Amino acid sequence: MPTDPDSWLGRDLFLRHNRPATRMYRNFLGMLLASVALVSGALTLTPVPADEGMWLFNDLPRGLLRDRYRFEPDDVWAEHLMKSCVRFNVGGSASFVSGSGLVLTNHHVGSDTLFKLSTPARNLLADGFLAETREQELKAPDLELNQLVGIRDVTSQVSQVVTSDMTPEQAVAARRAVVAGIEKSALDETGLRSNVITLYGGAKYHLYQYKKYTDVRLVWAPETSIAFFGGDADNFEYPRFCLDACLFRVYEDGQPARTPHFLKWSAEGPADGELVFVAGNPGRTSRIFTVAALKFQRDSRLPYQLELLRRQEILLQQYGLRSVENARRARDDLFGVQNSRKARLGMLAGLQDPALWVRREKEETELLDAVSQNPALRDAAAAWQKITATTRRRQEIQGKGIHLGSQLFSIAMTLVQIAEEDQKPPEQRLPEFSEASRESLLQQLYSDAPIYRDLDQVLLADSISRTLEARGFDDALCQKILAGQSRDERAAQLIAGSKLDHVDTRRTVAAGGDAALADSTDPLLQLARLVSPEVRRFRKITDELDELERQAYARIAEALFATRGTSTYPDATFTLRLAFGPVRGYRQNDQNLPAWTTVGGAFAHAEQHAGQADYALPDSWQRAKARLDFATPFNFVSTADIIGGNSGSPVVNRSLELVGLIFDGNLQSLSADFVYSEKQSRSVSVHAGAIRQALQIIYGAEHIVRELGH
Amino acid sequence: MPTDPDSWLGRDLFLRHNRPATRMYRNFLGMLLASVALVSGALTLTPVPADEGMWLFNDLPRGLLRDRYRFEPDDVWAEHLMKSCVRFNVGGSASFVSGSGLVLTNHHVGSDTLFKLSTPARNLLADGFLAETREQELKAPDLELNQLVGIRDVTSQVSQVVTSDMTPEQAVAARRAVVAGIEKSALDETGLRSNVITLYGGAKYHLYQYKKYTDVRLVWAPETSIAFFGGDADNFEYPRFCLDACLFRVYEDGQPARTPHFLKWSAEGPADGELVFVAGNPGRTSRIFTVAALKFQRDSRLPYQLELLRRQEILLQQYGLRSVENARRARDDLFGVQNSRKARLGMLAGLQDPALWVRREKEETELLDAVSQNPALRDAAAAWQKITATTRRRQEIQGKGIHLGSQLFSIAMTLVQIAEEDQKPPEQRLPEFSEASRESLLQQLYSDAPIYRDLDQVLLADSISRTLEARGFDDALCQKILAGQSRDERAAQLIAGSKLDHVDTRRTVAAGGDAALADSTDPLLQLARLVSPEVRRFRKITDELDELERQAYARIAEALFATRGTSTYPDATFTLRLAFGPVRGYRQNDQNLPAWTTVGGAFAHAEQHAGQADYALPDSWQRAKARLDFATPFNFVSTADIIGGNSGSPVVNRSLELVGLIFDGNLQSLSADFVYSEKQSRSVSVHAGAIRQALQIIYGAEHIVRELGH
Repeated sequence: MPTDPDSWLGRDLFLRHNRPATRMYRNFLGMLLASVALVSGALTLTPVPADEGMWLFNDLPRGLLRDRYRFEPDDVWAEHLMKSCVRFNVGGSASFVSGSGLVLTNHHVGSDTLFKLSTPARNLLADGFLAETREQELKAPDLELNQLVGIRDVTSQVSQVVTSDMTPEQAVAARRAVVAGIEKSALDETGLRSNVITLYGGAKYHLYQYKKYTDVRLVWAPETSIAFFGGDADNFEYPRFCLDACLFRVYEDGQPARTPHFLKWSAEGPADGELVFVAGNPGRTSRIFTVAALKFQRDSRLPYQLELLRRQEILLQQYGLRSVENARRARDDLFGVQNSRKARLGMLAGLQDPALWVRREKEETELLDAVSQNPALRDAAAAWQKITATTRRRQEIQGKGIHLGSQLFSIAMTLVQIAEEDQKPPEQRLPEFSEASRESLLQQLYSDAPIYRDLDQVLLADSISRTLEARGFDDALCQKILAGQSRDERAAQLIAGSKLDHVDTRRTVAAGGDAALADSTDPLLQLARLVSPEVRRFRKITDELDELERQAYARIAEALFATRGTSTYPDATFTLRLAFGPVRGYRQNDQNLPAWTTVGGAFAHAEQHAGQADYALPDSWQRAKARLDFATPFNFVSTADIIGGNSGSPVVNRSLELVGLIFDGNLQSLSADFVYSEKQSRSVSVHAGAIRQALQIIYGAEHIVRELGH
Repeated sequence: MPTDPDSWLGRDLFLRHNRPATRMYRNFLGMLLASVALVSGALTLTPVPADEGMWLFNDLPRGLLRDRYRFEPDDVWAEHLMKSCVRFNVGGSASFVSGSGLVLTNHHVGSDTLFKLSTPARNLLADGFLAETREQELKAPDLELNQLVGIRDVTSQVSQVVTSDMTPEQAVAARRAVVAGIEKSALDETGLRSNVITLYGGAKYHLYQYKKYTDVRLVWAPETSIAFFGGDADNFEYPRFCLDACLFRVYEDGQPARTPHFLKWSAEGPADGELVFVAGNPGRTSRIFTVAALKFQRDSRLPYQLELLRRQEILLQQYGLRSVENARRARDDLFGVQNSRKARLGMLAGLQDPALWVRREKEETELLDAVSQNPALRDAAAAWQKITATTRRRQEIQGKGIHLGSQLFSIAMTLVQIAEEDQKPPEQRLPEFSEASRESLLQQLYSDAPIYRDLDQVLLADSISRTLEARGFDDALCQKILAGQSRDERAAQLIAGSKLDHVDTRRTVAAGGDAALADSTDPLLQLARLVSPEVRRFRKITDELDELERQAYARIAEALFATRGTSTYPDATFTLRLAFGPVRGYRQNDQNLPAWTTVGGAFAHAEQHAGQADYALPDSWQRAKARLDFATPFNFVSTADIIGGNSGSPVVNRSLELVGLIFDGNLQSLSADFVYSEKQSRSVSVHAGAIRQALQIIYGAEHIVRELGH
């Protein structure tokens, strides 16, 4: 529903909540959630144990796989898997499953589009969808899918421009200019989407190049009641029974795209204990974080984020209570918020466990000892102090910014910032307004997805309150925001007076540039202009903190390389990674949980929870009940190391056959942001066989099953 | 569900959320919510306009009523009304409606008892209840009802003991000792519950004496679906359609009590525009607050409370999602939390309106001017500075205390504190552990209402997290609380190891005193002993802040008396007050809202919201539909000045006939904590005729209708 997936809370789903920030202005939650991701790539602190790891496709753990599993992927294997994967830029992973552009992802990754394609009369989230023919496939208003086609190391170019005598401001500018230059010339050379990614906290920089698909159409989606069976109660739990899957198709020039790299559907699925691989885009981990940085997460950052998520959750619930249509309008955002809230609660619970601290503090002490004993590294010790200092500064500014948030306001803010940024030379622009990023930015800005003014007004009113609370009602800027009215009067006036829900208005404003904006009487544009300097002031502070942390973590990473070798993986960066591990159940509360559940189990689970919301199987399942094979595996778990952003990742066997579809991690996996454990931590997938059976028997989608090769 | 109504969030309902605090230890929300009520009695700042006012029964506004309404209540009128009223100590108001002890109050005041009397097999909240005979009436496990029988001014005694050269600690001790003495001798003399009440912020002290009823039985309650029709969405809204009523009966010596003072049921109900009176126990208002104190509420206190309420709301929702039985167990607390959350949101919205500040700052400036021009008052100006200082201190300590909260932990804490307090001379004990309060304290402590260990563990686990977040995980006391375990492991261990759910255990521990406690291996008792010194440290700080504010507000009140006269009312103190005003609709969003809704309107409202939760009328109403008089007024509004605690207040006409039952205020009334406005602010009542019709036609309670005199 928001115009900009990066600027909106509702997009902050688990398995997509950790995307690196790509836009300057984010509305209130987007803003704060993004800033946890500021160190957008780091390195783990210990030699990699067990099946830990989110490995780079240009640095796969071949030796490790050979030694542990007697399997060594070759270049053809790696390239085929890489090119079979696509990234949903709203935050999620996916894969090609036919040569005609068919894309498999999670229902909860597609739900943003399902929502945008819905109307009061056509509720695709509730009722599902099936295109009987290609003509019936529904074009998504603003989806962008990226297929990774190449990776290049640009570390030397990016590293050398920052020197030790630069101020943080100078360093930010230098880094920004060199990255903008690399991305622009890569785009000009190849026409590919080109992004420089910060890896190992700042020790390495790689250029990722993507083929972009922007004509993406919905093919099939089941009902939310089975895609998210068990609702918020079962989310992050196991055993699970969810058909969290849907299908899109990418088009080029109005025709289904030819996609020679795709994953064949497995006939059998994986055996218990079989090694499987997960290829997807984990959003962010923080495993390199120093103890001080982790403590900030534990004592301040996560509690603060949880407070905001709960606030948004109650707000959306309250709005939804008013009518059936309101509930429909709020549903997708509400799911996103609940998902993030539950994920962060799990992260916090992990950080509030004394056992974690014993381990992490020991590791840090050992590394600091090694650093102090190695004369070549001795000055690296200062890096830890620098992180402590930036962390303290982050604490001071937490929550003090401008928290205005509504879809229309976000559009206004984007328009104001485009006009402002366009007055700068290209290399000085904020990355999300760079020439290389412009096309993706405009696709979001000009989306014709519906905007609901009543909901937007509720969101804006609450965000005005939040800004008043954060900065104090008497703050001069707050008083200007209110303009003498109560927050409800003011929000009503702002929304009623704006015409930014018309895409044409946005285009006109964007074409007019800064001068036209100054004359605009649209109250939201005026408000965005009013707060823009303060938004920029905070952005400058956090950009400089990011840069200082990049420099410090680069030193820490070097110390790690020097003491422990380079056979490791960097923290997640919402780029393609390979994880692996066997399909394996686990023990919890004195119970052995099996490696998979079955289709029949879903019916039993529904019966066990009769009368509860979110536990009723859809009519389509009830009708098909007698014809289903109850023994078919439904959801399964493996030890593969995943995190937010991996949603929709294909799970493949050694032969690169698709055996499953990642859709969740269990509760115990939620501390994977900070530390991996294979004891109970599990990734949860939909079994490929269950998807095929559902398509065939429940949804009558023979034509799709044939396209999948069966 | 909690043993102690004062110590528990769920008791913090609107129209009861403002009760003055009476217990030393309150678990996490109880604690913080109570401390808004620390100035438990103050004076309004302006000459009383319109129908503003919560008047003392020993100082009724006879002149005002005569001048404005040509009605002058005499002493007989006042005494009859006063003695017809009863207070529910769980937080609410009520009245006698027959000579045989029948008590009318709100369903949401009785719901705590309905919940405690329910089991998985007998859900009184969902299904309602009717005793066909007196034998079937169900005894409440721990209700205490208070009937006010006398008021005495004790200002001179209480005021003179505190002198200007005392430290805050000395002043607290002196005040506490004199109050304890007065209450104890009043109790000894009369056997009546005796409480010294602080009025006008500390300028006056009155002794309130109550006849106590502790054998209270449930007679009738409708289904929650009609008592709270429209649920959280309609709460604090108008038009409304709620049968928020239930009936209890007080017993003495095993027989229905004889209650010669009772209100006759009106045959007709009020006319549009007719003057009505509300007699009840408004919990707390803060109309005397200085601008600095109000700003603290606006920018810090209310946002903080809302954060905690939202947290508790999500927690209870999450617990309730797991099963139908879980939802039942969490329902009553959840309602209380949602109610408080919505009430506080309205209060905050009122405080975030610039118009309020223009008015309040002007009033304060005028008063300060008057003070500075009156030599006799000049030193009163310092009182404002003192409030600014105490407010700053409150800000510093906000949220830093111990937030452990579960029902069993609250019991443990109470037992530990009783043992500790009993070692002090009586006059030095904390007020809630004084000799005069002991009986009420023990009634709560020894309640045999069910305690659900699973829910209690969830609450305790979350409250451990909250304590870790508030104080920092590395805090030494936090580490002792965790005892090396994760918070979930620790909570599980604490709850599993405790036997305090057995009332006998509590009695044994209480009998053993401090020595037995030291030897106890009950982990919750050990935990309570561990944190008790820190709880006391915070209590001491807030007690001294309260005392400093009493002294300051006493000076401010004197300044007000001197400049504006004494014809006014003190801020609410959860003691009996009289409010009044005509039955009158209002204009909202360009619509004229009528003074009352009708029984037929309830069916239309249900139809309009078909498919939404909380909008389905119960079967009993559907079955009776054809026999109902659709034109009967259902809910009505009046301008009477009410606030939390007034729930269940009788609404009477000049002839003291019962015409309605207060159950809510509209959204616009929620800022009444700080300022009264009669433009849109309305109290909302159930019409007496609707209750009678429902009893007769829907619930088949002819015997009750006869007892009511029809």
